[in-house]
Amino acid sequence: MESSSSEPVMSFRTRKWVRPEDLNANATLFGGSLLRWIDEEAAVYAIIQLGHQRVVTKYMSEIVFVSSAREGDIVEIGLVATKFGRTSLTMRAEARNLFTQQSILTIDELVFVNVDADGRPAPHGYTEITYDRDRVPRGDLQR
Amino acid sequence: MESSSSEPVMSFRTRKWVRPEDLNANATLFGGSLLRWIDEEAAVYAIIQLGHQRVVTKYMSEIVFVSSAREGDIVEIGLVATKFGRTSLTMRAEARNLFTQQSILTIDELVFVNVDADGRPAPHGYTEITYDRDRVPRGDLQR
Amino acid sequence: MESSSSEPVMSFRTRKWVRPEDLNANATLFGGSLLRWIDEEAAVYAIIQLGHQRVVTKYMSEIVFVSSAREGDIVEIGLVATKFGRTSLTMRAEARNLFTQQSILTIDELVFVNVDADGRPAPHGYTEITYDRDRVPRGDLQR
Amino acid sequence: MESSSSEPVMSFRTRKWVRPEDLNANATLFGGSLLRWIDEEAAVYAIIQLGHQRVVTKYMSEIVFVSSAREGDIVEIGLVATKFGRTSLTMRAEARNLFTQQSILTIDELVFVNVDADGRPAPHGYTEITYDRDRVPRGDLQR
Amino acid sequence: MESSSSEPVMSFRTRKWVRPEDLNANATLFGGSLLRWIDEEAAVYAIIQLGHQRVVTKYMSEIVFVSSAREGDIVEIGLVATKFGRTSLTMRAEARNLFTQQSILTIDELVFVNVDADGRPAPHGYTEITYDRDRVPRGDLQR
Amino acid sequence: MESSSSEPVMSFRTRKWVRPEDLNANATLFGGSLLRWIDEEAAVYAIIQLGHQRVVTKYMSEIVFVSSAREGDIVEIGLVATKFGRTSLTMRAEARNLFTQQSILTIDELVFVNVDADGRPAPHGYTEITYDRDRVPRGDLQR
Repeated sequence: MESSSSEPVMSFRTRKWVRPEDLNANATLFGGSLLRWIDEEAAVYAIIQLGHQRVVTKYMSEIVFVSSAREGDIVEIGLVATKFGRTSLTMRAEARNLFTQQSILTIDELVFVNVDADGRPAPHGYTEITYDRDRVPRGDLQR
Repeated sequence: MESSSSEPVMSFRTRKWVRPEDLNANATLFGGSLLRWIDEEAAVYAIIQLGHQRVVTKYMSEIVFVSSAREGDIVEIGLVATKFGRTSLTMRAEARNLFTQQSILTIDELVFVNVDADGRPAPHGYTEITYDRDRVPRGDLQR
Repeated sequence: MESSSSEPVMSFRTRKWVRPEDLNANATLFGGSLLRWIDEEAAVYAIIQLGHQRVVTKYMSEIVFVSSAREGDIVEIGLVATKFGRTSLTMRAEARNLFTQQSILTIDELVFVNVDADGRPAPHGYTEITYDRDRVPRGDLQR
Repeated sequence: MESSSSEPVMSFRTRKWVRPEDLNANATLFGGSLLRWIDEEAAVYAIIQLGHQRVVTKYMSEIVFVSSAREGDIVEIGLVATKFGRTSLTMRAEARNLFTQQSILTIDELVFVNVDADGRPAPHGYTEITYDRDRVPRGDLQR
Repeated sequence: MESSSSEPVMSFRTRKWVRPEDLNANATLFGGSLLRWIDEEAAVYAIIQLGHQRVVTKYMSEIVFVSSAREGDIVEIGLVATKFGRTSLTMRAEARNLFTQQSILTIDELVFVNVDADGRPAPHGYTEITYDRDRVPRGDLQR
Repeated sequence: MESSSSEPVMSFRTRKWVRPEDLNANATLFGGSLLRWIDEEAAVYAIIQLGHQRVVTKYMSEIVFVSSAREGDIVEIGLVATKFGRTSLTMRAEARNLFTQQSILTIDELVFVNVDADGRPAPHGYTEITYDRDRVPRGDLQR
């Protein structure tokens, strides 16, 4: 999980078990389920990177579905922060079949924006990636 | 629903009621839910256009989330076939807030592929759009 | 979608893909799933017809399940307003198998009531059907 | 749970906790959720009464929604067999708010049919109600 | 449902139909689904016994999965109060396959705690079991 | 993620976002949801450690719920293999609130068993932990 180069390494943490409700009529993984998993995982990743709980999906670059998965397969989802804007965070995402190690799809740019209580973009104040789990929401917890 | 020009008109049929489980932490529509709805609706649309039940998501062009929706809003999803390939169908998709008429997102190219029982691309034999519901799966029903 | 007679035509908009979780032990469409789909679709239809977001189910006339559907089938749900009361809207509903064109069930009277913020019936002020999507909630949006 | 008269007593067994996903826009129990619960419970009840696993919903008499329930309420669902046909079972159903003891709705006739492996009505061989749980599927278990 | 001895009898009320989404990769009942069902049922049971709506899971003694169930089986869940603490309720739970009558698992101690609006343990004032449904939440309803 | 001692370190990979459907009546994380998440995650972990897709939950030692979480919180689930039996794998599990770093619960022993196609315990052939993702199902893939 260390990288000798300066480029952050994609981290594959979450694994999803492909269930009957995730299949299309060809009995392979339904594209919509996969996109939902990736967006959820990206939200969690962005919350940790930006240290705020209010983040929203803003942009996804094109998506090519290169292979698929079947019921019982485990899909692992990787994410890495690639650019910190003033109010945004850009990530790269990949989904892989854990068993066959085949890539299922890659999304080069997945942009989330940090918003304030009124839903307007708000500066997040960070400029670089945090590894693992050491930056967690503080200022905006509703307690 | 008629168009004087030769270009097919986008058809908004399905409406989705935004429920608590579709919200992100900012209490607006979660991007992942919306993408799942669009992919499901596109699958139904492609099955009708191609007259076969086995279709899979192949490609999505970039997606900009321009506005959102809240709990209780109704989102309508529009689709229109824009290109018939030998084994594929290209559609354009849009999601709109039915109440405010604001566009939520647009996907210029959403490509589904017709596959055979082994999951390989198979010619579908169609070259133009069918309106409404008059072309339905026949040859490949498993009965 | 036009009708030469004065009677409004039933509009089939929403299509549902029959998934594994919608099946009963005979591997056909579970009645409870279908009733839930119809009630949801009727709620959306009533919201648009009455121009208010607060509508509740009040009555359903008898239901005969005349045929069914299987996994992978597409069920289309049709609705048409048949009577505008002072606080209520009566609709007729039908569910059909899109592939076989067989009727699955018909509900002659499905009554929704427009309610105020305290849940009491409230006049909605409309007396006739609106086609498609041109009457949308205004006065009662909580924004 | 015994009755001195000859008429079988309605048995309220299952209780459902009203969750956010079960609410309509008026924040009261959504009719579609309730109908789904009742149909599921009736299926279980019919399986036990008929001693076969393959039962399907055939008919529901009219339904009046007389009151509702809110998030956090517990709804109890009662069923009682009222008539044994050659291939069918007729039940009466009621849903009540456990806290307020108010009736939410009543369905006088809810008919399920016993079917064979091909989905055709099949004689079930029973003529009277069984109390509690002492008649369970045997002959048709797929093991 | 009466017992001549002084010990309360376990009451099996709720039955769950095993659906595709409840299966593990061995096509038997997934342990996680079963534990969720038991915890939900225990919450409803505790709400009725303690006469308050705010109860939380505090403790479960060890769990041995002695048998399983398959799709289409009906699992019945039994609960009985075994000890009333000042703020807690201890129950014993069992899950059985209704068809085969085999025990699936037993939990000797399942403890729920009654909490106040701030989530702190609060005295519930009861010392013995109530049969069926005659003690329902009163004092803490939010209406 | 390396450990200088010989004892394997617990790995926290999966994070769950607490949603409305995961709450109890006290608006804190529902115990049943948490147990389901842990059992699913343990299944994925066991599949990777044992290199087979057919694993079933066999035993859980006692569980104390020491704190909770609220809507919008992120819960992280940690697992570590602690003992390899001939057909079984024993794990230790912990759930933590990612924001507050508080432990929610710990399960000292969570035992899964490797089974054959008939559901009988089958030797898995492994005696020690594999880090990350390098041992994946091979022999029993159904392709």
